[in-house]
Amino acid sequence: MAEHTVKAFDEDITRLRGLIAEMGGLAELSIQESLEAMIKGDEDLADGVVVRDKKIDALESEVDKLAVRIIALRAPMADDLREVIAALKIAGVVERIGDYSKNIAKRVGKIEARKHFEPLTLLPAMGDIAAEMVHDVLTAYAARDPVLALEVIATDDKVDAFYNSIFRNVVSYMMENPATISSAAQILFVARNLERIGDHATNVAEMVHFAATGNYPPDDR
Amino acid sequence: MAEHTVKAFDEDITRLRGLIAEMGGLAELSIQESLEAMIKGDEDLADGVVVRDKKIDALESEVDKLAVRIIALRAPMADDLREVIAALKIAGVVERIGDYSKNIAKRVGKIEARKHFEPLTLLPAMGDIAAEMVHDVLTAYAARDPVLALEVIATDDKVDAFYNSIFRNVVSYMMENPATISSAAQILFVARNLERIGDHATNVAEMVHFAATGNYPPDDR
Repeated sequence: MAEHTVKAFDEDITRLRGLIAEMGGLAELSIQESLEAMIKGDEDLADGVVVRDKKIDALESEVDKLAVRIIALRAPMADDLREVIAALKIAGVVERIGDYSKNIAKRVGKIEARKHFEPLTLLPAMGDIAAEMVHDVLTAYAARDPVLALEVIATDDKVDAFYNSIFRNVVSYMMENPATISSAAQILFVARNLERIGDHATNVAEMVHFAATGNYPPDDR
Repeated sequence: MAEHTVKAFDEDITRLRGLIAEMGGLAELSIQESLEAMIKGDEDLADGVVVRDKKIDALESEVDKLAVRIIALRAPMADDLREVIAALKIAGVVERIGDYSKNIAKRVGKIEARKHFEPLTLLPAMGDIAAEMVHDVLTAYAARDPVLALEVIATDDKVDAFYNSIFRNVVSYMMENPATISSAAQILFVARNLERIGDHATNVAEMVHFAATGNYPPDDR
């Protein structure tokens, strides 16, 4: 490519990475706020998460459009092309992470007698780890850092362990407090959504590792 | 586009869809064979699943390359462009589904005293549903059928219910048979992988629904 084209390509890629960083920042905030809304019963905060999801979707569309324009106008090859394709796929996964937070937010009104409902106290620590995974994997993407990507993949085990522990706790609680079963079921759905966020952050981490090293991480997990 | 260009575009899209159908067929077969290998302890069959995963990865690369060529050469607009982008993202998710089967296959050698190990009997029905979801979602993609896509999304609840039931069963089994804990933990990993396959099939179903109707399905799940 001629020098001015290389510069234009670099600017496009920087913008593409910026859009994905913005998506990731919003997705991370939505995880935290959907959990906060769930714990406090704050339906306004929950509505804000639902509204923000439209912004995340719109950013995915922008990533798609820009990626297509880069391919059509700049005809990138090899590593550059792989980077554009990776951006398209990562944006799809981050959009999906946003969906899980929206799904949590939409359950906020479904919990009854919130003040005395112990299982709620199990969620924040799991939510923090899931949000941290999303934060770290986007940092790894921005810095093309395969080592941090591997750390994100390792953290997924903690999210899984939390899920298993919450599942056992909530099932016991249901048996002891049958009147709360429908609220308790909501907690399981929330924990499941957090577990899926961890899984999707792991997917992104694998793509980041591949983009940075040309290899997928060893899958002995 | 001139008429001959339209025809060339249609041929490219047909080939793109064909590659994804081929990926989906292999992914479905790998779910079934990884489970069969797990239940019979057939390590050769398991090795076949691992080898097949490389073929799935190679097909994803082909989808990526062809999609890029279509964008660069045919400059598709609107619906046509959306279809190409959807193909790229769907191929990424199907590749991931293949990874989960490979992960199951790699655990085949880790189960001890297989003949008398009851928890294994819990897996085939769950595997059948997950494989059916993958089959149906690719059928929905090929037929651009939003109704079948919604059915796939509804089926995910069954996979989740299986996972919960297997989880409870295996944990009870572990408590009664502490000597088998490490084998039993493998069953939990397999069930978790099947649950993730169901989740990813659901993702694809949502993309198919969007491509066919312009709307994402209502997320009251």
